[in-house]
Amino acid sequence: MGLVTADMSVSLDLVGAGRDQSLEHPFGPDVGERFHARMFEHGEDSPDEIARIVDAGAFIMGRHMFGPDRGEWDLDWQGWWGPEPPYRGPVFVLCSRPRESVEMEGGTTFHFVTDGPGTALELARAAAGERNVSIAGGVTTLNAYLAAGLVDELRLHVAPFTLGDGLRVFDDVTGLAMVPASSRTTPHVTHLTYRRA
Amino acid sequence: MGLVTADMSVSLDLVGAGRDQSLEHPFGPDVGERFHARMFEHGEDSPDEIARIVDAGAFIMGRHMFGPDRGEWDLDWQGWWGPEPPYRGPVFVLCSRPRESVEMEGGTTFHFVTDGPGTALELARAAAGERNVSIAGGVTTLNAYLAAGLVDELRLHVAPFTLGDGLRVFDDVTGLAMVPASSRTTPHVTHLTYRRA
Repeated sequence: MGLVTADMSVSLDLVGAGRDQSLEHPFGPDVGERFHARMFEHGEDSPDEIARIVDAGAFIMGRHMFGPDRGEWDLDWQGWWGPEPPYRGPVFVLCSRPRESVEMEGGTTFHFVTDGPGTALELARAAAGERNVSIAGGVTTLNAYLAAGLVDELRLHVAPFTLGDGLRVFDDVTGLAMVPASSRTTPHVTHLTYRRA
Repeated sequence: MGLVTADMSVSLDLVGAGRDQSLEHPFGPDVGERFHARMFEHGEDSPDEIARIVDAGAFIMGRHMFGPDRGEWDLDWQGWWGPEPPYRGPVFVLCSRPRESVEMEGGTTFHFVTDGPGTALELARAAAGERNVSIAGGVTTLNAYLAAGLVDELRLHVAPFTLGDGLRVFDDVTGLAMVPASSRTTPHVTHLTYRRA
């Protein structure tokens, strides 16, 4: 059985997403642009990090990572990842309304799970087999798995600026103990890896 | 002129002190013990870290780092650092009520500054000469200097557990940009150094 991993880009004050998410600004106004400008467009970190993330055999994401929640499903809308999402495997979307699975180009299939994070993890583990399950985000979903002690390897990519407001990793995650595994500093980002204690 | 440095031990969720500080529990119930047990009693980090901190030529601390604020000064009370505090140099205490300086054994003298962080830093710089000024804490004091962009080198010593509640580094520090300088992982703590941008 593989590991349950999570990669999350955060600010120095652990904000992983802004509060006002929308189709135009999935990370909230300004936040996404700053993360991308500071972390991924410098090139040095991009290929490794992305390769490690998409190497998982299955993915779990929250409702807001798939698309904005406007109440009932708009079945013409297939998420904001475009026709060929980068996952290229099964993605289990935590949500409250059932929906048929959506098969995209390039191997990504979105499955919609209404029974909560535990069920989503069971399904993802079964789909991943020996490979890892990656908690793809967002912050609220990651915090739910952290609080339940279900994340084997947490990789935080810390951008060196504060945002001050937004959804933070570890918010309401009390009493979690992990083991520091590694850290790496580049001029633009600090990569921290923690393993489950 | 030396640097303005700050060393702060924090939890994974950036809590540097509990909310209910008292004479018995200066970091708040449970918090201090956990930090010390996890970070300093393992030995490996202790001498280096402490040497680097007390190498400064002058120190700045908040009122609660000197002792609990019970309203008027109790002049028999000389802070909770004991008769021979570890600083061995001038310590400028931010406070709202004037008090005569207190000279302790071993070279530590507490000076009480009622004109705010800017004045305290001027006095500390003058006292330190070519040596560094260390922001000794607590969290509120550190955040004030971070928000003002006055910290040249911030060293966070991150214990690998969450506390969930307490005073956090970077709270209300918006728009701060720093440069990642180094990171080091031990089995018990992650040391992160950031420099002023």
